Amino acid sequence: MPASAALEVMEDRGIKLLNAKEDSYGGVVVNVEEPMDSVVFASLLQSSMSKWREQGKKGVWIKLPIKYVNLVEAVVKAGFRYHHAEPDYLMLVHWIPKTADLLPANASHVVGIGALVMNDNREVLVVQECNGWFKGTGIWKLPTGTIEEGEDISAAAVREVKEETGIETEFVEVLAFRQSHKSFFQKSDMFIVCMLQPRSFDIQMQTSEIAAAQWMPIEDYAAQPFVKQNLGFGSIAKICLEKLDGKYTGFTPLPTISTSGKKTYLYFNKHLAGHLFSSKDHQA
Amino acid sequence: MPASAALEVMEDRGIKLLNAKEDSYGGVVVNVEEPMDSVVFASLLQSSMSKWREQGKKGVWIKLPIKYVNLVEAVVKAGFRYHHAEPDYLMLVHWIPKTADLLPANASHVVGIGALVMNDNREVLVVQECNGWFKGTGIWKLPTGTIEEGEDISAAAVREVKEETGIETEFVEVLAFRQSHKSFFQKSDMFIVCMLQPRSFDIQMQTSEIAAAQWMPIEDYAAQPFVKQNLGFGSIAKICLEKLDGKYTGFTPLPTISTSGKKTYLYFNKHLAGHLFSSKDHQA
Repeated sequence: MPASAALEVMEDRGIKLLNAKEDSYGGVVVNVEEPMDSVVFASLLQSSMSKWREQGKKGVWIKLPIKYVNLVEAVVKAGFRYHHAEPDYLMLVHWIPKTADLLPANASHVVGIGALVMNDNREVLVVQECNGWFKGTGIWKLPTGTIEEGEDISAAAVREVKEETGIETEFVEVLAFRQSHKSFFQKSDMFIVCMLQPRSFDIQMQTSEIAAAQWMPIEDYAAQPFVKQNLGFGSIAKICLEKLDGKYTGFTPLPTISTSGKKTYLYFNKHLAGHLFSSKDHQA
Repeated sequence: MPASAALEVMEDRGIKLLNAKEDSYGGVVVNVEEPMDSVVFASLLQSSMSKWREQGKKGVWIKLPIKYVNLVEAVVKAGFRYHHAEPDYLMLVHWIPKTADLLPANASHVVGIGALVMNDNREVLVVQECNGWFKGTGIWKLPTGTIEEGEDISAAAVREVKEETGIETEFVEVLAFRQSHKSFFQKSDMFIVCMLQPRSFDIQMQTSEIAAAQWMPIEDYAAQPFVKQNLGFGSIAKICLEKLDGKYTGFTPLPTISTSGKKTYLYFNKHLAGHLFSSKDHQA
Protein backbone atom coordinates (compact mmCIF):
# COMPACT_ATOMS: atom_id res chain seq x y z
CA MET A 1 0.00 0.00 0.00
CA PRO A 2 1.68 3.25 -1.10
CA ALA A 3 2.08 5.94 1.54
CA SER A 4 -0.18 8.33 -0.42
CA ALA A 5 -3.14 6.00 0.08
CA ALA A 6 -3.20 7.14 3.69
CA LEU A 7 -5.00 10.24 2.39
CA GLU A 8 -8.04 8.06 1.77
CA VAL A 9 -8.13 6.78 5.32
CA MET A 10 -9.29 8.25 8.61
CA GLU A 11 -9.15 6.68 12.04
CA ASP A 12 -12.05 6.12 14.40
CA ARG A 13 -11.18 4.73 17.86
CA GLY A 14 -8.15 2.96 16.39
CA ILE A 15 -10.11 1.44 13.46
CA LYS A 16 -9.09 2.57 9.98
CA LEU A 17 -11.95 3.74 7.78
CA LEU A 18 -12.39 5.04 4.23
CA ASN A 19 -12.68 8.79 3.98
CA ALA A 20 -16.25 9.64 2.95
CA LYS A 21 -18.37 12.76 2.47
CA GLU A 22 -22.00 12.94 3.58
CA ASP A 23 -24.60 13.65 0.89
CA SER A 24 -27.89 15.50 1.47
CA TYR A 25 -29.99 12.31 1.39
CA GLY A 26 -28.53 10.60 4.49
CA GLY A 27 -25.88 8.76 2.52
CA VAL A 28 -22.11 8.90 2.05
CA VAL A 29 -19.86 9.23 -1.00
CA VAL A 30 -16.36 7.76 -1.28
CA ASN A 31 -14.13 9.19 -4.01
CA VAL A 32 -11.14 6.88 -4.42
CA GLU A 33 -8.34 9.23 -5.46
CA GLU A 34 -5.20 7.26 -4.65
CA PRO A 35 -3.96 3.78 -5.61
CA MET A 36 -4.62 1.07 -3.03
CA ASP A 37 -4.03 -2.63 -2.67
CA SER A 38 -7.32 -4.51 -3.17
CA VAL A 39 -6.98 -6.61 0.00
CA VAL A 40 -6.28 -3.53 2.12
CA PHE A 41 -9.18 -1.73 0.43
CA ALA A 42 -11.59 -4.65 1.05
CA SER A 43 -10.73 -4.60 4.75
CA LEU A 44 -11.17 -0.80 5.01
CA LEU A 45 -14.48 -1.05 3.18
CA GLN A 46 -15.70 -3.74 5.56
CA SER A 47 -14.96 -1.69 8.69
CA SER A 48 -16.36 1.46 7.05
CA MET A 49 -19.60 -0.33 6.16
CA SER A 50 -20.02 -1.44 9.80
CA LYS A 51 -19.55 2.14 10.92
CA TRP A 52 -22.01 3.55 8.35
CA ARG A 53 -24.58 0.89 9.20
CA GLU A 54 -24.22 1.81 12.91
CA GLN A 55 -24.66 5.49 12.01
CA GLY A 56 -27.89 4.76 10.11
CA LYS A 57 -26.50 5.83 6.75
CA LYS A 58 -28.65 5.03 3.71
CA GLY A 59 -27.02 5.05 0.25
CA VAL A 60 -23.26 4.43 0.03
CA TRP A 61 -21.65 5.60 -3.23
CA ILE A 62 -18.16 4.59 -4.33
CA LYS A 63 -16.62 6.35 -7.31
CA LEU A 64 -13.70 4.38 -8.76
CA PRO A 65 -11.55 5.97 -11.48
CA ILE A 66 -10.75 3.45 -14.23
CA LYS A 67 -7.06 3.44 -13.20
CA TYR A 68 -8.12 1.80 -9.91
CA VAL A 69 -9.97 -1.02 -11.70
CA ASN A 70 -8.17 -3.45 -9.37
CA LEU A 71 -10.66 -2.43 -6.64
CA VAL A 72 -13.90 -3.11 -8.55
CA GLU A 73 -14.16 -6.76 -7.56
CA ALA A 74 -13.72 -5.95 -3.83
CA VAL A 75 -16.56 -3.42 -3.96
CA VAL A 76 -18.95 -5.81 -5.72
CA LYS A 77 -18.06 -8.59 -3.27
CA ALA A 78 -18.99 -6.20 -0.45
CA GLY A 79 -22.57 -6.19 -1.83
CA PHE A 80 -22.47 -3.13 -4.08
CA ARG A 81 -24.07 -2.93 -7.53
CA TYR A 82 -23.15 -0.80 -10.53
CA HIS A 83 -24.95 2.54 -10.75
CA HIS A 84 -23.44 4.12 -13.86
CA ALA A 85 -20.15 4.43 -15.72
CA GLU A 86 -18.44 7.07 -17.80
CA PRO A 87 -15.29 6.44 -19.89
CA ASP A 88 -12.98 7.21 -16.96
CA TYR A 89 -14.83 5.99 -13.88
CA LEU A 90 -17.31 3.49 -12.47
CA MET A 91 -19.89 4.44 -9.82
CA LEU A 92 -21.04 1.68 -7.49
CA VAL A 93 -23.78 1.93 -4.89
CA HIS A 94 -25.21 0.06 -1.92
CA TRP A 95 -28.47 0.85 -0.09
CA ILE A 96 -28.02 -0.04 3.58
CA PRO A 97 -31.59 0.19 5.06
CA LYS A 98 -34.05 -2.68 4.83
CA THR A 99 -36.62 -0.27 3.33
CA ALA A 100 -37.17 0.20 -0.43
CA ASP A 101 -34.20 1.65 -2.27
CA LEU A 102 -34.74 5.40 -2.93
CA LEU A 103 -31.56 5.80 -4.98
CA PRO A 104 -31.85 8.04 -8.04
CA ALA A 105 -32.02 6.36 -11.43
CA ASN A 106 -29.21 6.35 -13.94
CA ALA A 107 -29.56 8.54 -17.05
CA SER A 108 -32.08 6.81 -19.31
CA HIS A 109 -32.17 8.87 -22.49
CA VAL A 110 -29.84 9.75 -25.31
CA VAL A 111 -31.02 13.11 -26.67
CA GLY A 112 -30.57 13.87 -30.36
CA ILE A 113 -31.51 16.74 -32.60
CA GLY A 114 -32.68 17.06 -36.19
CA ALA A 115 -32.24 20.46 -37.89
CA LEU A 116 -34.61 22.13 -40.35
CA VAL A 117 -32.62 24.91 -42.05
CA MET A 118 -34.25 26.72 -45.00
CA ASN A 119 -32.88 29.46 -47.27
CA ASP A 120 -34.91 32.19 -49.00
CA ASN A 121 -35.60 29.95 -52.05
CA ARG A 122 -37.60 27.41 -50.01
CA GLU A 123 -34.59 25.07 -50.17
CA VAL A 124 -33.79 22.98 -47.14
CA LEU A 125 -30.30 21.85 -46.05
CA VAL A 126 -30.01 18.06 -46.47
CA VAL A 127 -27.25 15.46 -46.16
CA GLN A 128 -26.46 11.84 -46.97
CA GLU A 129 -24.62 9.90 -44.27
CA CYS A 130 -21.46 7.72 -44.56
CA ASN A 131 -22.36 5.40 -41.69
CA GLY A 132 -25.27 3.67 -40.04
CA TRP A 133 -28.75 2.84 -41.19
CA PHE A 134 -28.92 5.40 -44.03
CA LYS A 135 -25.49 4.58 -45.55
CA GLY A 136 -25.75 3.94 -49.29
CA THR A 137 -29.54 4.39 -49.41
CA GLY A 138 -29.37 7.66 -51.38
CA ILE A 139 -31.87 9.17 -48.94
CA TRP A 140 -31.50 12.91 -48.33
CA LYS A 141 -32.14 13.68 -44.69
CA LEU A 142 -32.04 16.62 -42.32
CA PRO A 143 -28.73 17.01 -40.43
CA THR A 144 -28.94 15.14 -37.12
CA GLY A 145 -26.69 14.54 -34.16
CA THR A 146 -26.42 13.73 -30.47
CA ILE A 147 -26.36 16.28 -27.66
CA GLU A 148 -23.02 16.23 -25.85
CA GLU A 149 -22.61 16.21 -22.07
CA GLY A 150 -23.83 19.50 -20.62
CA GLU A 151 -24.90 20.94 -23.99
CA ASP A 152 -28.08 22.96 -24.57
CA ILE A 153 -30.51 21.67 -27.20
CA SER A 154 -30.18 24.91 -29.18
CA ALA A 155 -26.37 24.85 -29.05
CA ALA A 156 -26.28 21.19 -30.15
CA ALA A 157 -28.46 21.94 -33.19
CA VAL A 158 -26.27 24.90 -34.25
CA ARG A 159 -23.07 22.85 -33.68
CA GLU A 160 -24.24 19.78 -35.63
CA VAL A 161 -25.31 21.84 -38.66
CA LYS A 162 -21.98 23.68 -38.62
CA GLU A 163 -19.96 20.43 -38.24
CA GLU A 164 -21.77 18.48 -40.95
CA THR A 165 -22.28 21.23 -43.54
CA GLY A 166 -20.24 24.30 -42.53
CA ILE A 167 -23.43 26.39 -42.48
CA GLU A 168 -23.77 28.99 -39.69
CA THR A 169 -27.24 29.16 -38.16
CA GLU A 170 -29.31 30.74 -35.43
CA PHE A 171 -31.72 28.67 -33.34
CA VAL A 172 -35.43 29.48 -33.83
CA GLU A 173 -37.61 26.87 -32.11
CA VAL A 174 -38.39 23.24 -31.29
CA LEU A 175 -40.98 22.05 -33.84
CA ALA A 176 -41.71 18.66 -32.26
CA PHE A 177 -39.99 15.85 -30.40
CA ARG A 178 -40.19 12.08 -30.52
CA GLN A 179 -39.51 9.63 -27.70
CA SER A 180 -38.57 6.08 -28.63
CA HIS A 181 -37.33 3.12 -26.65
CA LYS A 182 -34.64 0.44 -26.86
CA SER A 183 -32.86 2.48 -29.46
CA PHE A 184 -29.42 1.75 -28.11
CA PHE A 185 -28.48 -0.83 -25.42
CA GLN A 186 -32.02 -0.66 -23.99
CA LYS A 187 -31.73 3.11 -23.55
CA SER A 188 -34.46 5.45 -24.75
CA ASP A 189 -34.03 8.19 -27.28
CA MET A 190 -35.45 11.69 -27.37
CA PHE A 191 -35.22 13.18 -30.86
CA ILE A 192 -35.89 16.92 -30.97
CA VAL A 193 -36.72 18.53 -34.33
CA CYS A 194 -35.41 22.10 -34.36
CA MET A 195 -35.85 24.95 -36.81
CA LEU A 196 -32.80 27.14 -37.45
CA GLN A 197 -32.27 30.27 -39.53
CA PRO A 198 -29.20 30.09 -41.82
CA ARG A 199 -26.62 32.89 -41.49
CA SER A 200 -24.34 31.54 -44.26
CA PHE A 201 -25.05 29.52 -47.41
CA ASP A 202 -21.82 27.97 -48.81
CA ILE A 203 -21.71 24.30 -47.91
CA GLN A 204 -18.42 22.87 -46.63
CA MET A 205 -19.07 19.22 -45.97
CA GLN A 206 -17.56 17.14 -43.17
CA THR A 207 -16.18 14.08 -44.98
CA SER A 208 -15.86 11.65 -42.03
CA GLU A 209 -19.60 11.36 -41.42
CA ILE A 210 -21.26 12.98 -44.45
CA ALA A 211 -21.23 11.58 -48.01
CA ALA A 212 -23.11 14.49 -49.64
CA ALA A 213 -24.82 17.75 -48.66
CA GLN A 214 -26.94 20.22 -50.60
CA TRP A 215 -29.75 22.78 -50.56
CA MET A 216 -32.82 20.94 -51.87
CA PRO A 217 -36.34 22.28 -52.61
CA ILE A 218 -38.41 21.38 -49.54
CA GLU A 219 -41.09 19.80 -51.73
CA ASP A 220 -38.46 17.47 -53.29
CA TYR A 221 -37.24 16.51 -49.82
CA ALA A 222 -40.78 15.69 -48.68
CA ALA A 223 -41.54 13.81 -51.93
CA GLN A 224 -38.77 11.20 -51.45
CA PRO A 225 -40.45 7.77 -51.27
CA PHE A 226 -38.80 6.93 -47.93
CA VAL A 227 -39.97 10.18 -46.35
CA LYS A 228 -43.50 9.75 -47.73
CA GLN A 229 -43.78 6.10 -46.68
CA ASN A 230 -42.17 6.28 -43.25
CA LEU A 231 -44.77 7.47 -40.76
CA GLY A 232 -42.22 9.15 -38.48
CA PHE A 233 -40.27 10.96 -41.21
CA GLY A 234 -43.44 11.75 -43.09
CA SER A 235 -45.07 13.33 -40.05
CA ILE A 236 -42.02 15.48 -39.34
CA ALA A 237 -41.88 16.57 -43.01
CA LYS A 238 -45.56 17.61 -42.90
CA ILE A 239 -44.93 19.70 -39.77
CA CYS A 240 -41.87 21.30 -41.40
CA LEU A 241 -43.86 22.23 -44.51
CA GLU A 242 -46.62 23.73 -42.34
CA LYS A 243 -43.99 25.74 -40.44
CA LEU A 244 -42.42 27.01 -43.64
CA ASP A 245 -45.83 28.18 -44.77
CA GLY A 246 -46.15 30.17 -41.53
CA LYS A 247 -48.99 28.04 -40.17
CA TYR A 248 -47.25 26.29 -37.26
CA THR A 249 -45.77 27.24 -33.88
CA GLY A 250 -43.49 25.07 -31.79
CA PHE A 251 -41.74 25.66 -28.47
CA THR A 252 -39.30 28.56 -27.97
CA PRO A 253 -36.62 28.60 -25.23
CA LEU A 254 -37.02 31.03 -22.32
CA PRO A 255 -33.93 31.56 -20.10
CA THR A 256 -34.81 30.74 -16.51
CA ILE A 257 -33.33 29.48 -13.21
CA SER A 258 -33.73 26.02 -11.66
CA THR A 259 -34.48 25.30 -7.99
CA SER A 260 -30.78 24.85 -7.31
CA GLY A 261 -29.95 28.18 -8.97
CA LYS A 262 -28.66 26.90 -12.32
CA LYS A 263 -29.35 28.62 -15.63
CA THR A 264 -31.81 26.53 -17.64
CA TYR A 265 -34.07 26.94 -20.65
CA LEU A 266 -37.81 26.38 -20.50
CA TYR A 267 -39.26 25.47 -23.93
CA PHE A 268 -42.89 26.57 -24.36
CA ASN A 269 -45.42 27.99 -26.80
CA LYS A 270 -44.22 31.59 -26.76
CA HIS A 271 -46.70 32.58 -29.46
CA LEU A 272 -49.53 32.03 -26.96
CA ALA A 273 -47.83 32.70 -23.61
CA GLY A 274 -44.89 35.01 -24.44
CA HIS A 275 -46.79 38.04 -23.10
CA LEU A 276 -46.60 36.52 -19.58
CA PHE A 277 -42.84 36.95 -19.35
CA SER A 278 -40.83 40.17 -19.16
CA SER A 279 -37.47 40.09 -20.91
CA LYS A 280 -35.95 41.83 -17.87
CA ASP A 281 -36.50 38.74 -15.69
CA HIS A 282 -35.49 36.24 -18.32
CA GLN A 283 -32.04 37.11 -19.59
CA ALA A 284 -29.87 34.50 -21.30
CA MET B 1 -12.03 -22.92 -16.26
CA PRO B 2 -15.40 -24.69 -16.00
CA ALA B 3 -16.42 -26.84 -18.93
CA SER B 4 -19.43 -24.62 -19.64
CA ALA B 5 -17.13 -21.72 -20.49
CA ALA B 6 -16.26 -23.55 -23.67
CA LEU B 7 -19.55 -22.17 -25.01
CA GLU B 8 -17.91 -18.75 -25.14
CA VAL B 9 -15.00 -19.93 -27.22
CA MET B 10 -14.57 -20.73 -30.90
CA GLU B 11 -11.49 -22.02 -32.66
CA ASP B 12 -9.74 -20.44 -35.61
CA ARG B 13 -6.83 -22.41 -37.11
CA GLY B 14 -6.12 -23.95 -33.71
CA ILE B 15 -6.22 -20.59 -31.86
CA LYS B 16 -8.98 -20.17 -29.27
CA LEU B 17 -11.01 -16.98 -29.62
CA LEU B 18 -13.90 -15.33 -27.78
CA ASN B 19 -17.27 -15.84 -29.40
CA ALA B 20 -18.41 -12.50 -30.84
CA LYS B 21 -21.29 -11.18 -32.93
CA GLU B 22 -20.79 -8.58 -35.65
CA ASP B 23 -22.68 -5.31 -35.32
CA SER B 24 -23.90 -3.15 -38.23
CA TYR B 25 -21.14 -0.57 -37.77
CA GLY B 26 -18.14 -2.78 -38.58
CA GLY B 27 -17.62 -3.78 -34.97
CA VAL B 28 -18.07 -6.86 -32.77
CA VAL B 29 -19.96 -7.51 -29.54
CA VAL B 30 -18.91 -10.08 -26.92
CA ASN B 31 -21.58 -11.11 -24.41
CA VAL B 32 -19.90 -12.98 -21.58
CA GLU B 33 -22.51 -15.48 -20.47
CA GLU B 34 -20.48 -18.11 -18.61
CA PRO B 35 -18.00 -17.92 -15.73
CA MET B 36 -14.35 -17.88 -16.75
CA ASP B 37 -10.96 -17.68 -15.05
CA SER B 38 -9.52 -14.16 -15.48
CA VAL B 39 -6.14 -15.38 -16.73
CA VAL B 40 -7.74 -17.67 -19.33
CA PHE B 41 -10.06 -14.82 -20.35
CA ALA B 42 -7.16 -12.34 -20.71
CA SER B 43 -5.38 -14.73 -23.04
CA LEU B 44 -8.51 -15.36 -25.14
CA LEU B 45 -9.12 -11.63 -25.35
CA GLN B 46 -5.57 -11.00 -26.53
CA SER B 47 -5.79 -13.54 -29.38
CA SER B 48 -9.29 -12.33 -30.28
CA MET B 49 -8.11 -8.70 -30.46
CA SER B 50 -5.31 -9.70 -32.85
CA LYS B 51 -7.85 -11.44 -35.05
CA TRP B 52 -10.30 -8.50 -35.02
CA ARG B 53 -7.48 -6.04 -35.76
CA GLU B 54 -6.43 -8.22 -38.73
CA GLN B 55 -10.07 -8.30 -39.93
CA GLY B 56 -10.28 -4.49 -39.82
CA LYS B 57 -12.94 -4.45 -37.11
CA LYS B 58 -13.71 -1.04 -35.57
CA GLY B 59 -15.51 -0.92 -32.22
CA VAL B 60 -15.21 -3.92 -29.87
CA TRP B 61 -17.90 -4.12 -27.17
CA ILE B 62 -17.67 -6.42 -24.15
CA LYS B 63 -20.74 -6.82 -21.95
CA LEU B 64 -19.85 -8.25 -18.53
CA PRO B 65 -22.64 -9.25 -16.14
CA ILE B 66 -21.87 -8.14 -12.57
CA LYS B 67 -21.45 -11.77 -11.50
CA TYR B 68 -18.35 -11.94 -13.74
CA VAL B 69 -16.77 -8.89 -12.07
CA ASN B 70 -13.52 -10.92 -11.81
CA LEU B 71 -12.97 -10.22 -15.54
CA VAL B 72 -13.27 -6.40 -15.46
CA GLU B 73 -9.61 -5.78 -14.69
CA ALA B 74 -8.43 -8.00 -17.58
CA VAL B 75 -10.62 -6.08 -20.04
CA VAL B 76 -9.38 -2.67 -18.87
CA LYS B 77 -5.77 -3.89 -18.99
CA ALA B 78 -6.38 -4.91 -22.63
CA GLY B 79 -6.99 -1.21 -23.40
CA PHE B 80 -10.77 -1.00 -23.05
CA ARG B 81 -12.64 1.87 -21.39
CA TYR B 82 -16.01 1.91 -19.67
CA HIS B 83 -18.96 2.77 -21.90
CA HIS B 84 -21.93 2.49 -19.54
CA ALA B 85 -23.22 0.42 -16.65
CA GLU B 86 -26.59 -0.75 -15.43
CA PRO B 87 -27.19 -2.40 -12.02
CA ASP B 88 -26.44 -5.86 -13.37
CA TYR B 89 -23.78 -5.36 -16.03
CA LEU B 90 -20.84 -3.25 -17.20
CA MET B 91 -20.25 -2.43 -20.88
CA LEU B 92 -16.67 -1.83 -21.97
CA VAL B 93 -15.52 -0.70 -25.38
CA HIS B 94 -12.37 -0.35 -27.45
CA TRP B 95 -12.02 1.47 -30.80
CA ILE B 96 -9.42 -0.34 -32.90
CA PRO B 97 -8.78 2.03 -35.88
CA LYS B 98 -6.35 4.94 -35.66
CA THR B 99 -9.13 7.26 -36.93
CA ALA B 100 -11.42 9.31 -34.66
CA ASP B 101 -13.68 7.21 -32.45
CA LEU B 102 -17.24 7.08 -33.89
CA LEU B 103 -18.70 5.16 -30.96
CA PRO B 104 -22.17 6.25 -29.85
CA ALA B 105 -22.43 8.31 -26.67
CA ASN B 106 -23.76 6.99 -23.40
CA ALA B 107 -27.22 8.15 -22.26
CA SER B 108 -26.83 11.75 -21.10
CA HIS B 109 -30.23 12.74 -19.70
CA VAL B 110 -32.46 11.77 -16.82
CA VAL B 111 -36.03 12.56 -17.91
CA GLY B 112 -38.56 13.60 -15.29
CA ILE B 113 -42.17 14.71 -15.39
CA GLY B 114 -44.25 17.21 -13.46
CA ALA B 115 -48.05 16.76 -13.50
CA LEU B 116 -50.71 19.47 -13.63
CA VAL B 117 -54.00 17.82 -12.60
CA MET B 118 -57.02 20.08 -12.06
CA ASN B 119 -60.55 19.24 -10.90
CA ASP B 120 -63.77 21.05 -11.86
CA ASN B 121 -63.38 23.56 -8.97
CA ARG B 122 -60.12 24.99 -10.37
CA GLU B 123 -58.24 23.07 -7.69
CA VAL B 124 -54.90 21.57 -8.58
CA LEU B 125 -53.42 18.37 -7.11
CA VAL B 126 -50.37 19.24 -4.97
CA VAL B 127 -48.00 17.37 -2.64
CA GLN B 128 -45.31 17.96 -0.03
CA GLU B 129 -42.28 15.65 -0.23
CA CYS B 130 -40.61 13.62 2.56
CA ASN B 131 -37.13 13.69 1.01
CA GLY B 132 -34.75 15.88 -0.91
CA TRP B 133 -34.58 19.59 -1.47
CA PHE B 134 -38.23 20.36 -0.60
CA LYS B 135 -38.33 18.29 2.62
CA GLY B 136 -39.68 20.33 5.54
CA THR B 137 -40.11 23.54 3.51
CA GLY B 138 -43.91 23.45 3.60
CA ILE B 139 -43.95 24.16 -0.14
CA TRP B 140 -46.83 22.63 -2.07
CA LYS B 141 -45.65 21.38 -5.43
CA LEU B 142 -46.99 19.49 -8.43
CA PRO B 143 -46.41 15.71 -8.30
CA THR B 144 -43.12 14.89 -10.03
CA GLY B 145 -41.11 11.78 -10.81
CA THR B 146 -38.55 10.13 -13.02
CA ILE B 147 -39.33 8.19 -16.20
CA GLU B 148 -38.41 4.52 -15.84
CA GLU B 149 -36.47 2.51 -18.41
CA GLY B 150 -38.55 2.11 -21.56
CA GLU B 151 -41.49 4.14 -20.25
CA ASP B 152 -43.49 6.65 -22.33
CA ILE B 153 -43.68 10.23 -21.04
CA SER B 154 -47.47 10.03 -20.86
CA ALA B 155 -47.40 6.70 -18.99
CA ALA B 156 -44.81 8.02 -16.51
CA ALA B 157 -46.97 11.05 -15.71
CA VAL B 158 -50.09 8.91 -15.12
CA ARG B 159 -48.08 6.41 -13.01
CA GLU B 160 -46.42 9.03 -10.80
CA VAL B 161 -49.72 10.79 -10.01
CA LYS B 162 -51.31 7.44 -9.17
CA GLU B 163 -48.36 6.34 -6.98
CA GLU B 164 -48.04 9.58 -5.04
CA THR B 165 -51.71 10.50 -4.61
CA GLY B 166 -53.86 7.54 -5.68
CA ILE B 167 -55.61 9.75 -8.27
CA GLU B 168 -56.42 8.14 -11.66
CA THR B 169 -55.73 10.40 -14.62
CA GLU B 170 -55.68 10.58 -18.39
CA PHE B 171 -52.81 12.26 -20.24
CA VAL B 172 -53.71 15.46 -22.12
CA GLU B 173 -50.56 17.23 -23.33
CA VAL B 174 -47.01 18.43 -22.71
CA LEU B 175 -47.24 22.08 -21.63
CA ALA B 176 -43.51 22.85 -21.65
CA PHE B 177 -40.15 21.26 -20.91
CA ARG B 178 -36.96 22.40 -19.26
CA GLN B 179 -33.44 21.18 -19.90
CA SER B 180 -30.86 21.66 -17.17
CA HIS B 181 -27.30 20.43 -16.69
CA LYS B 182 -25.13 18.88 -13.98
CA SER B 183 -28.25 18.00 -12.07
CA PHE B 184 -26.97 14.61 -11.01
CA PHE B 185 -23.41 13.23 -11.37
CA GLN B 186 -22.75 15.60 -14.30
CA LYS B 187 -25.81 14.24 -16.15
CA SER B 188 -28.40 16.55 -17.68
CA ASP B 189 -32.05 16.63 -16.80
CA MET B 190 -35.09 17.02 -19.01
CA PHE B 191 -38.15 18.00 -16.98
CA ILE B 192 -41.43 17.71 -18.88
CA VAL B 193 -44.51 19.51 -17.54
CA CYS B 194 -47.62 17.50 -18.45
CA MET B 195 -51.31 18.28 -18.13
CA LEU B 196 -53.56 15.38 -17.06
CA GLN B 197 -57.31 15.08 -16.64
CA PRO B 198 -58.38 13.48 -13.32
CA ARG B 199 -60.65 10.42 -13.49
CA SER B 200 -60.93 10.01 -9.69
CA PHE B 201 -60.79 12.52 -6.84
CA ASP B 202 -60.19 10.76 -3.49
CA ILE B 203 -56.58 11.18 -2.46
CA GLN B 204 -54.73 8.13 -1.10
CA MET B 205 -51.26 9.30 -0.29
CA GLN B 206 -48.06 7.29 -0.66
CA THR B 207 -46.34 7.66 2.72
CA SER B 208 -42.78 6.67 1.77
CA GLU B 209 -42.16 9.70 -0.45
CA ILE B 210 -45.07 12.08 0.25
CA ALA B 211 -45.67 13.98 3.52
CA ALA B 212 -48.99 15.59 2.46
CA ALA B 213 -51.28 15.81 -0.57
CA GLN B 214 -54.38 17.90 -1.31
CA TRP B 215 -56.50 19.64 -3.91
CA MET B 216 -55.57 23.35 -3.70
CA PRO B 217 -57.03 26.36 -5.53
CA ILE B 218 -54.68 27.01 -8.45
CA GLU B 219 -54.37 30.68 -7.51
CA ASP B 220 -53.21 29.68 -3.99
CA TYR B 221 -50.64 27.33 -5.50
CA ALA B 222 -49.29 30.07 -7.76
CA ALA B 223 -49.33 32.65 -4.92
CA GLN B 224 -46.87 30.69 -2.71
CA PRO B 225 -43.80 32.93 -2.16
CA PHE B 226 -41.42 30.21 -3.42
CA VAL B 227 -43.39 29.74 -6.62
CA LYS B 228 -43.66 33.48 -7.22
CA GLN B 229 -39.99 34.17 -6.51
CA ASN B 230 -38.41 31.20 -8.31
CA LEU B 231 -38.13 32.05 -11.98
CA GLY B 232 -38.45 28.41 -13.11
CA PHE B 233 -41.43 27.47 -10.93
CA GLY B 234 -43.02 30.87 -11.48
CA SER B 235 -42.82 30.53 -15.26
CA ILE B 236 -44.36 27.07 -15.18
CA ALA B 237 -47.16 28.30 -12.88
CA LYS B 238 -47.94 31.15 -15.29
CA ILE B 239 -48.17 28.70 -18.21
CA CYS B 240 -50.42 26.39 -16.16
CA LEU B 241 -52.78 29.26 -15.30
CA GLU B 242 -52.93 30.29 -18.96
CA LYS B 243 -53.71 26.69 -19.92
CA LEU B 244 -56.48 26.43 -17.32
CA ASP B 245 -58.00 29.60 -18.74
CA GLY B 246 -58.07 27.93 -22.18
CA LYS B 247 -55.50 30.29 -23.69
CA TYR B 248 -52.54 27.96 -24.16
CA THR B 249 -51.65 24.95 -26.33
CA GLY B 250 -48.75 22.59 -25.75
CA PHE B 251 -47.62 19.46 -27.58
CA THR B 252 -49.89 16.42 -28.00
CA PRO B 253 -48.56 12.89 -28.67
CA LEU B 254 -49.17 11.33 -32.11
CA PRO B 255 -48.53 7.58 -32.42
CA THR B 256 -46.00 6.95 -35.16
CA ILE B 257 -43.25 4.53 -36.27
CA SER B 258 -39.48 5.03 -36.08
CA THR B 259 -36.98 4.23 -38.86
CA SER B 260 -36.30 0.85 -37.29
CA GLY B 261 -40.02 0.05 -37.13
CA LYS B 262 -40.65 0.71 -33.43
CA LYS B 263 -43.80 2.39 -32.11
CA THR B 264 -42.99 5.90 -30.93
CA TYR B 265 -44.84 9.08 -30.03
CA LEU B 266 -44.24 12.37 -31.79
CA TYR B 267 -45.19 15.36 -29.59
CA PHE B 268 -46.28 18.40 -31.58
CA ASN B 269 -48.72 21.32 -31.72
CA LYS B 270 -51.81 19.38 -32.72
CA HIS B 271 -53.99 22.46 -32.42
CA LEU B 272 -52.21 23.91 -35.47
CA ALA B 273 -51.13 20.81 -37.37
CA GLY B 274 -53.58 18.08 -36.30
CA HIS B 275 -55.47 18.34 -39.60
CA LEU B 276 -52.38 17.00 -41.42
CA PHE B 277 -52.69 13.54 -39.86
CA SER B 278 -55.37 10.93 -40.41
CA SER B 279 -56.22 8.82 -37.37
CA LYS B 280 -56.21 5.75 -39.64
CA ASP B 281 -52.43 6.02 -40.17
CA HIS B 282 -51.63 6.94 -36.60
CA GLN B 283 -53.06 4.30 -34.32
CA ALA B 284 -51.73 3.84 -30.79
